[in-house]
Amino acid sequence: MKIALIGAGNVATHLGRKLFGVGEELTQVFSRNWLKAKQLADELGAVPVDDLAEITTVADLYLIAVHDDAIGEVAARLADNGVVDRLVVHTSGATPMQLFSEAAPGLERVGVLYPLQTFSKIRQPDFTKIPICVDASQTSDRELLRSLALNISPHVYPINDQQRATLHLAAVFVNNFTNHLFAIGENILKVGDLPFEMLLPLIQETVGKLENGPPAAMQTGPAIRHDEATIERHLRQLDGQPDLQEIYRLISQNIIASHL
Amino acid sequence: MKIALIGAGNVATHLGRKLFGVGEELTQVFSRNWLKAKQLADELGAVPVDDLAEITTVADLYLIAVHDDAIGEVAARLADNGVVDRLVVHTSGATPMQLFSEAAPGLERVGVLYPLQTFSKIRQPDFTKIPICVDASQTSDRELLRSLALNISPHVYPINDQQRATLHLAAVFVNNFTNHLFAIGENILKVGDLPFEMLLPLIQETVGKLENGPPAAMQTGPAIRHDEATIERHLRQLDGQPDLQEIYRLISQNIIASHL
Repeated sequence: MKIALIGAGNVATHLGRKLFGVGEELTQVFSRNWLKAKQLADELGAVPVDDLAEITTVADLYLIAVHDDAIGEVAARLADNGVVDRLVVHTSGATPMQLFSEAAPGLERVGVLYPLQTFSKIRQPDFTKIPICVDASQTSDRELLRSLALNISPHVYPINDQQRATLHLAAVFVNNFTNHLFAIGENILKVGDLPFEMLLPLIQETVGKLENGPPAAMQTGPAIRHDEATIERHLRQLDGQPDLQEIYRLISQNIIASHL
Repeated sequence: MKIALIGAGNVATHLGRKLFGVGEELTQVFSRNWLKAKQLADELGAVPVDDLAEITTVADLYLIAVHDDAIGEVAARLADNGVVDRLVVHTSGATPMQLFSEAAPGLERVGVLYPLQTFSKIRQPDFTKIPICVDASQTSDRELLRSLALNISPHVYPINDQQRATLHLAAVFVNNFTNHLFAIGENILKVGDLPFEMLLPLIQETVGKLENGPPAAMQTGPAIRHDEATIERHLRQLDGQPDLQEIYRLISQNIIASHL
């Protein structure tokens, strides 16, 4: 299967490398940044392109791994280029497949291949552990994407737009918001001249415990114990930081309400 | 060094086992629950006790690993028993060492040995990775606790009351609150009939990334991108759950404010 990879960011890079690694043929890599396109294309044995008009019309699969707000434009340009009966998919958790029918109604075969993971340049993802969510407007394409995805991960889920939106929302809570709580923890420690490293084993164990049961069953701390004295003391410690007091209060209340 | 272990909960059990494992002599295990005292004492080659009045007066170290609100009472009883010039420490992150002078002014040598970790019955803690925070009213006892702690972990920190309170507050954010965000994620997925397991690799990678840099530098998501459209869509998805909307809004605002 000839794949045109559109994008050269973290998702495009790691997904491209993995697909190349399992023997897929990457024909082109597009990025508006020529150097980025060239670097990734060289690595994947593909041709670099920095002009959307130059994207081939004869790939079997177009993998759009660009910023969410650029997906519509890219799809529209592919349709303008003359892509009609080829499979065009995006890799976004936040973007409905529906977008294609609005932005590029000419595309007949569209879909989604969404790896549920946070990618960063310097970390090597282990695809065998990453859930890959697939969807397509046509049943046969859903099968095709499922097969392709199974080559890179055993965890493949057929997921519709609504479920993907749900996953993406949950991911914001457990990834983005959780990371921000880590940052808050780091800032709190700075006041006491304590290194963030001290919290790492605790953080790792908080996640490790999830292997033994659902998070609600693992809840500990002053809120679930209704330990008002400790809660009040913590709020006093946060004097002068009303935002953190409000976050502390709100999450504590929600813990209490969730465990009534 | 003869150690009297007061408590038979998670902290007492894991700390007791570890101390026993490195060759310390546990003389007594106290629990109000006789069976619990007996079980742990048997395991540690100690004598079980279920009456505070029966606690020996000749241990070298009293390790009070009971609920925070029972520490004062236990300390007072030890003083009443006639314990004076023996080292009495608690293992709590939330309780100031100061408490001893209020609850049991007769005790001359007091301190704290606080393992910064969340313990659960079924999970085996790796003490070599756990920070142990120590403090004592007398310098020589601080040294003694440091030596003892270094037998069970290379990560030993001399920490005063204020720093320990800071650590405990930060721990609530990165452990208790983070775990609740995981529970929120699980609940959100239930609506879409999706298993929590799908989020585990993402959660593990969120923590894994901390090896590469501080959490603030790792922040991703709609808030830090100022992606108002996605934020608005997520808030709409949470319609009918005003508590979660408020948590979403507040943490998003705090992410934005922290990265100005």
